[in-house]
Amino acid sequence: MSPKSDIKDAGLAAAGKERIAWAGREMPVLKLIAERFEKEQPFKGVRIAACLHVTTETANLALTLKAGGADLILCGSNPLSTQDDAAAALDAYGIPTHAIKGEDDATYYKHIMSALEVQPQLTVDDGADLVTTLHTKRTELLSGVIGGTEETTTGVIRLQAMAADGALKYPIIAVNDAKTKHLFDNRYGTGQSTLDGITRATNVLWAGKKAVVVGYGWCGHGLALRASGMGSHVIVVEVDPVRALEAVMDGFAVMPMEDAARIGDIFVTVTGDKNVIDANDFAVMKNGAIMANSGHFNSEINIPALETMAAGKRTLKPYVEEYLMPDGRKLYLLGEGRLINLAAAEGHPASVMDMSFANQALGLEYLVKNRGQLSAGVYPVPADLDDNVAALKLTSLGVTIDTLTEEQKEYLSSWQEGT
Amino acid sequence: MSPKSDIKDAGLAAAGKERIAWAGREMPVLKLIAERFEKEQPFKGVRIAACLHVTTETANLALTLKAGGADLILCGSNPLSTQDDAAAALDAYGIPTHAIKGEDDATYYKHIMSALEVQPQLTVDDGADLVTTLHTKRTELLSGVIGGTEETTTGVIRLQAMAADGALKYPIIAVNDAKTKHLFDNRYGTGQSTLDGITRATNVLWAGKKAVVVGYGWCGHGLALRASGMGSHVIVVEVDPVRALEAVMDGFAVMPMEDAARIGDIFVTVTGDKNVIDANDFAVMKNGAIMANSGHFNSEINIPALETMAAGKRTLKPYVEEYLMPDGRKLYLLGEGRLINLAAAEGHPASVMDMSFANQALGLEYLVKNRGQLSAGVYPVPADLDDNVAALKLTSLGVTIDTLTEEQKEYLSSWQEGT
Amino acid sequence: MSPKSDIKDAGLAAAGKERIAWAGREMPVLKLIAERFEKEQPFKGVRIAACLHVTTETANLALTLKAGGADLILCGSNPLSTQDDAAAALDAYGIPTHAIKGEDDATYYKHIMSALEVQPQLTVDDGADLVTTLHTKRTELLSGVIGGTEETTTGVIRLQAMAADGALKYPIIAVNDAKTKHLFDNRYGTGQSTLDGITRATNVLWAGKKAVVVGYGWCGHGLALRASGMGSHVIVVEVDPVRALEAVMDGFAVMPMEDAARIGDIFVTVTGDKNVIDANDFAVMKNGAIMANSGHFNSEINIPALETMAAGKRTLKPYVEEYLMPDGRKLYLLGEGRLINLAAAEGHPASVMDMSFANQALGLEYLVKNRGQLSAGVYPVPADLDDNVAALKLTSLGVTIDTLTEEQKEYLSSWQEGT
Amino acid sequence: MSPKSDIKDAGLAAAGKERIAWAGREMPVLKLIAERFEKEQPFKGVRIAACLHVTTETANLALTLKAGGADLILCGSNPLSTQDDAAAALDAYGIPTHAIKGEDDATYYKHIMSALEVQPQLTVDDGADLVTTLHTKRTELLSGVIGGTEETTTGVIRLQAMAADGALKYPIIAVNDAKTKHLFDNRYGTGQSTLDGITRATNVLWAGKKAVVVGYGWCGHGLALRASGMGSHVIVVEVDPVRALEAVMDGFAVMPMEDAARIGDIFVTVTGDKNVIDANDFAVMKNGAIMANSGHFNSEINIPALETMAAGKRTLKPYVEEYLMPDGRKLYLLGEGRLINLAAAEGHPASVMDMSFANQALGLEYLVKNRGQLSAGVYPVPADLDDNVAALKLTSLGVTIDTLTEEQKEYLSSWQEGT
Repeated sequence: MSPKSDIKDAGLAAAGKERIAWAGREMPVLKLIAERFEKEQPFKGVRIAACLHVTTETANLALTLKAGGADLILCGSNPLSTQDDAAAALDAYGIPTHAIKGEDDATYYKHIMSALEVQPQLTVDDGADLVTTLHTKRTELLSGVIGGTEETTTGVIRLQAMAADGALKYPIIAVNDAKTKHLFDNRYGTGQSTLDGITRATNVLWAGKKAVVVGYGWCGHGLALRASGMGSHVIVVEVDPVRALEAVMDGFAVMPMEDAARIGDIFVTVTGDKNVIDANDFAVMKNGAIMANSGHFNSEINIPALETMAAGKRTLKPYVEEYLMPDGRKLYLLGEGRLINLAAAEGHPASVMDMSFANQALGLEYLVKNRGQLSAGVYPVPADLDDNVAALKLTSLGVTIDTLTEEQKEYLSSWQEGT
Repeated sequence: MSPKSDIKDAGLAAAGKERIAWAGREMPVLKLIAERFEKEQPFKGVRIAACLHVTTETANLALTLKAGGADLILCGSNPLSTQDDAAAALDAYGIPTHAIKGEDDATYYKHIMSALEVQPQLTVDDGADLVTTLHTKRTELLSGVIGGTEETTTGVIRLQAMAADGALKYPIIAVNDAKTKHLFDNRYGTGQSTLDGITRATNVLWAGKKAVVVGYGWCGHGLALRASGMGSHVIVVEVDPVRALEAVMDGFAVMPMEDAARIGDIFVTVTGDKNVIDANDFAVMKNGAIMANSGHFNSEINIPALETMAAGKRTLKPYVEEYLMPDGRKLYLLGEGRLINLAAAEGHPASVMDMSFANQALGLEYLVKNRGQLSAGVYPVPADLDDNVAALKLTSLGVTIDTLTEEQKEYLSSWQEGT
Repeated sequence: MSPKSDIKDAGLAAAGKERIAWAGREMPVLKLIAERFEKEQPFKGVRIAACLHVTTETANLALTLKAGGADLILCGSNPLSTQDDAAAALDAYGIPTHAIKGEDDATYYKHIMSALEVQPQLTVDDGADLVTTLHTKRTELLSGVIGGTEETTTGVIRLQAMAADGALKYPIIAVNDAKTKHLFDNRYGTGQSTLDGITRATNVLWAGKKAVVVGYGWCGHGLALRASGMGSHVIVVEVDPVRALEAVMDGFAVMPMEDAARIGDIFVTVTGDKNVIDANDFAVMKNGAIMANSGHFNSEINIPALETMAAGKRTLKPYVEEYLMPDGRKLYLLGEGRLINLAAAEGHPASVMDMSFANQALGLEYLVKNRGQLSAGVYPVPADLDDNVAALKLTSLGVTIDTLTEEQKEYLSSWQEGT
Repeated sequence: MSPKSDIKDAGLAAAGKERIAWAGREMPVLKLIAERFEKEQPFKGVRIAACLHVTTETANLALTLKAGGADLILCGSNPLSTQDDAAAALDAYGIPTHAIKGEDDATYYKHIMSALEVQPQLTVDDGADLVTTLHTKRTELLSGVIGGTEETTTGVIRLQAMAADGALKYPIIAVNDAKTKHLFDNRYGTGQSTLDGITRATNVLWAGKKAVVVGYGWCGHGLALRASGMGSHVIVVEVDPVRALEAVMDGFAVMPMEDAARIGDIFVTVTGDKNVIDANDFAVMKNGAIMANSGHFNSEINIPALETMAAGKRTLKPYVEEYLMPDGRKLYLLGEGRLINLAAAEGHPASVMDMSFANQALGLEYLVKNRGQLSAGVYPVPADLDDNVAALKLTSLGVTIDTLTEEQKEYLSSWQEGT
């Protein structure tokens, strides 16, 4: 292990490199960008601190940024999501990495502080813990920051709250809101990987189960689609009337949490909010009910309340905690309520991270190119970058599409021609 | 028939009234609005010209506006989409109506001119033929117009082109872009009703057919979903890379039109553009291929080119034209290329029109309330109106949903709390 | 009209011929058989009485049998299912036809008696009304009968009951039980055409509706699949535990009728049994509930009980009867409870009838070829005929499949080779 | 470890017991049977040799038989499918167990021979390796055998071949053919667990992948349904025309293997036959193609041919072998071509094995009760046992269903009542 890293076991580097290469197979768009970066060196001499889930896909992004000349340091964005072999391989590739699977909260924040030591000019964040730490604990560094990117819905919500408070001090691109990110990663990525995490933890049959999806945003859409595709009877819980109505029209049962709590077999939260499954819900759940979270923070299920209510608790098998309720019911919490796809499985498949991270790479390049041009605030990914990611992905999949003829373009921009 | 109307047969009024009441069963949101309008009279003395598909659902909107005090006149927004019994009933209810199913283009525009005779203060449009006629043939009336609404994607595209040209002279609300409109009407409405129109015209089995969906916007999403739900093998043709990629990830085959043309059994266009199926496609289609359009205008399939190429043409049965190609192949065009759900079936089910037309009614009320406050341009439906329509619809369906607690709201607006 | 026929209107023959040709487009397997029959004349001089739904697809079967030399007479197998234009065309083609859409029960049985007048040597039945009439009213003809075929589940159940009673006097091939019949016609055919019938009668939006499917046999499978594919929330009612469990694992809600009755929006029966929706169910249904039947007989919904309970009844529009219940609720019965796909739509699409009727044609040929070899009883379609129908259908669809190599065949018939 | 066992590591017993209990949660039907067996002791003193995948679900069956008084010995039915912790727990529970994950073929057959040492009176088999070994290597034991059961399609095919050859010497119940087995285990079990195994081995995104399902029996149905439910574009390869046509009508692409080979991303075999993916297919596959088998034997993919053709081979990560082809393409074989759901995941979820193994337990009880009554041959599970398993399962899921009224039963057995 390099003295600049804090990882679990440097001996895992070889296995990690193989797995990083395996993920790379499914990340052709990022690979094309890496090849260009290698020539153009957009980040030559730029210090980047990245707080991300340390997975094999993230490793491919890190190598891409390094290929572009960046002076990069990496820390984990969740205590349970680090893949220790990927961390070891990154260290071996010369990228200082601070992340250990299962680290406690103190270590987690120590790692973030270590990443800030490099006095970053760009920040890459997933959930905004790096950015908020920077804005509260290392404010003296803020003036040196060119900009940053944010990967996930939860982080974007936090940043928008910061911006609304006037607290955000540099421009941040909301990678999450790129169409080639949230339409794919949040939907197909979260959909598949969340089911995968729950399956690996429990090996339950999805067919015939009542699967309660809490939150019907893009992640919830994906989850409901995949649970339904596996034969579950899907129940959706929502607070937004338009989304709730969409769930109804998609054929799902829609009801308040207190009703769903009584009949669900498996509960998954993807709301970005806190305590969406709460004490009164635990009180009425069926014996054997299984709960998991796939939102960014482990606050969606009110675990403190569950701990208080339970008469006993034990770890049944990896990622499965059994809570014995006073009335004899047993409730199961998976992965300590942390995002189950990263805790119990391998996170999003590389193919969707390819697009998310292509947006990251291009977003960071955009920030450097427009250094000094952007005031503090939350920015969208420029539309042409977004479309370009989609076009490259299609090409890599061998899919050809049509283009508009001149006549068609003209028709779309005219208004005189009618019935 | 009232002398103020031009309809097919006033004798159809009784049947029309029954069918209007039947549609009304599924339009509870509009009914609630009508009850309020009756008390509040928001349109008292206001002249409204509405150019809409004259169906039983439209009739419910017309009666709602009339209940609100409007002085309303109606013309059709497509030569083939009028339901003559609904037109007769509207006439009988005292609403001047100018629309005859199968009218020629000259009559179609004559009816629009008749509607403009009332010197409308509000315009309601579906495809923007009324608005463009007003802006080109009756410009002297423009100064008297408070505002307007537009129902469909095609119309919004035309209005935005007008606004870009500086040609639009009053404020128009893009009802189409309300979430409770396009997420439901364009997707579930068009999806079901387009298949319905094709089925009524042809009685073909969908299972096992190669169904080519041209355009993967919201209408295309709905069509692909429903064709797949009927057992078809769906092929998507797109020009937008993000949408094309979405279709790939949704499990559909994606290819250029020229490849799809060779293998498709049934083709449906929903692009809002012209000539998306063109001469070179007709040249390679399989014998027996069926074509229909569900976009607003009958220009999506290049019918003039088909007429030129064909060695012969005959009407096989209602809504089915057989084109005999010089090489002996027979190609079938449904409903003369006009929107097939209205030509060969009854248009969108009332349940989705309930929401679309609730947005229309509330949008018109909003224009009157904000008379003089809005400059010329294309405006969204205010978000609270949109959410309100969804909430009313859920209530009418007997679906209850959760609301955020104060703690949850605060959490969503804070940014300090992290991992 | 030929004096040998009893039809509605001979003037409809031209339109009927066009529609028969249109259906024929989708019946390539039957067409191949017709071409062979024309050469081989397997039915030369054989008298055939056929009691079938008189549709354009049946017309293609009739013409196939006639091409094979048969002396054919046709009567309807349901009072509401006759397509009068198809009947007129058959008459014009020289096939005596006795069927009028909407005929009363007396006329219905008069038509069956007319068909028996020819002293049939082969019977073709759909529901077994012809066979039971022959066995009870014209027993003197039984000795002259070579054999028969039966099209549908209900008929096969009746024939098996007859055989169990020792009442069946000649061999009958259960065409229904051919794989190329029930796996396709009952599932994809009934699934699509039942939804089609209900949609044409009501134009309701399926998305978001609670659709109650009563019976989860092959027809019920198809219905649930299609209703789900249209966005409905499907509820299955069953009495067989294996089928009920299958419905659970397919993701559907499963419950007793009395619970489903309280929450369903649309009810469809496909059980082959009687009174599966009964008085106690009508008593608790929601206002506006819609009921339809797609089983063979109109006894699945207890209509006499509904008539007794209702305070009033009126025909709202074609195929929609409104029953006013004493408590003010309105319940809707479609197509008088007769199979809704034939009453309100055009019956099964030709593409599935192609296979069902290919089995009919080949089954009748088999009976003639094996004249005197088969004792009275119910027989399956020989497996090679069944496979042959599938193979011809694939070819007509342009689908190629693999065949087993010799090595593979040998492997499948050996048992020594293990792990 | 007991001297009577041959397992990997007795120290895994505690973890195995927890996992067995976890699986037991989802096996309520088997639990009810175990409770009855404990009282009734149907196997008191009966020697049973069971050759099954040694998983936590099998452990629950083993404990059920032991509860019923059986003198049971267990060996594995596949070299790669043993869960070593389950084996250790069984040993600790006093059930001699001979199975080690990854054992070579010699050890595999040695374990079978060890199981036969007990001179079994009942055999339980999965794939018929135990039965064929008994019939070829230990024929002197045959006279002492009361009967046996067989779990899987492949085994039943082998036993039927044996019976056809006159080689089968005692009665065997084809548990596979019970409706509550093959409709659920083969379809929903194989469907889910096969995808699970491939996902665990590769973490590939299923959405947008071309997934080639080779074989469209019940396993293939399940696989295609689940792959489609995960967003894959499914291609089916079949040799049976009826099944191929079913796949077409289910909306899938159907083509010969040689065409599918050129375009597939992931290939899965479930045919029960050998070399269904062969040398000429490897020759044309795309770079990066992934192959897995979920049929019983590892002969479905012609691995010897692949080994011969490849220029190199290496293990990339657990269960992923990379074959470097002479032209530079890389092909990936998962789990050495052994059933991937057991090799790379945990096999079928307990909830379906509950029904399969309930049939096993009841089938063995039936054999003992009917000792001496059954001649050699392959027998179905008696229908009442089958229905009973379904009914118990429904009860355990909290699902209530209807029962036929006397009137309805009578109606179904009568034939006089017609239209």
